[in-house]
Amino acid sequence: MSQSTDGEAGFSLDPRLAADCLFVTDLMLSRVLLMNDSRYPWLILVPRRPNISEIHHLSKDDQALLLSEISQTSKYLEKEYAPKKINIGALGNIVAQLHVHIVARHEGDAAWPGPVWGHSEALPYDGENATEMVKKIKAEIS
Amino acid sequence: MSQSTDGEAGFSLDPRLAADCLFVTDLMLSRVLLMNDSRYPWLILVPRRPNISEIHHLSKDDQALLLSEISQTSKYLEKEYAPKKINIGALGNIVAQLHVHIVARHEGDAAWPGPVWGHSEALPYDGENATEMVKKIKAEIS
Repeated sequence: MSQSTDGEAGFSLDPRLAADCLFVTDLMLSRVLLMNDSRYPWLILVPRRPNISEIHHLSKDDQALLLSEISQTSKYLEKEYAPKKINIGALGNIVAQLHVHIVARHEGDAAWPGPVWGHSEALPYDGENATEMVKKIKAEIS
Repeated sequence: MSQSTDGEAGFSLDPRLAADCLFVTDLMLSRVLLMNDSRYPWLILVPRRPNISEIHHLSKDDQALLLSEISQTSKYLEKEYAPKKINIGALGNIVAQLHVHIVARHEGDAAWPGPVWGHSEALPYDGENATEMVKKIKAEIS
């Protein structure tokens, strides 16, 4: 993945996130990534702030921005994929850099009704599908 | 658990949450519950609004309140338990009523580094410990 650093702000994307995801776009606060697992529509927001691992460590203004971007992303997934539930998670036990998962869940998907995190190995997109999907998300979410 | 309904606002706590948790207190927006699993300091915020299953379905004002209560709860857990990570999750695949998990995680805890959700059966508090803990959380978080 390109764009793994954002020098002017001291932000640098964790290499594990960079390896597991496709770059979509940058919103006001967050870098938007598409998890490279074709089994779930799964976006990740990474606030472009250095050395932050918890939501409550962000400034109040950044917390409000993050919330607004979570809502915006959730609405997009709801409209596009009509999920049974949106799952939102900020875990970070393995990758400490603050990142928020937003996943469209459907009854009968691979991990249903359990959480997607730690469930099983990802099934990557094939290249063409990923490019199309990234282009569409970028156009709709920005 | 008592206080499972809040008649004036049309809010009624999902019976599964009521069965699995201990009532702590009501903040401005959310009912605070302690998950009855002594293996993790694990609080749950349930916005006292009827028929809401997703964060982005709350009004903007309620979203801001929820964020503030998530931060407040996270800060309490951080101060009290010095966790390695706070895990925040809004899943709802089983209990659709909007509820936000805030869990203090430590290296080597039962589910580490995986998610606590769906991991294994809870290990309930003994009654006296739970009463003490609920009293303390209520005093510090309100």
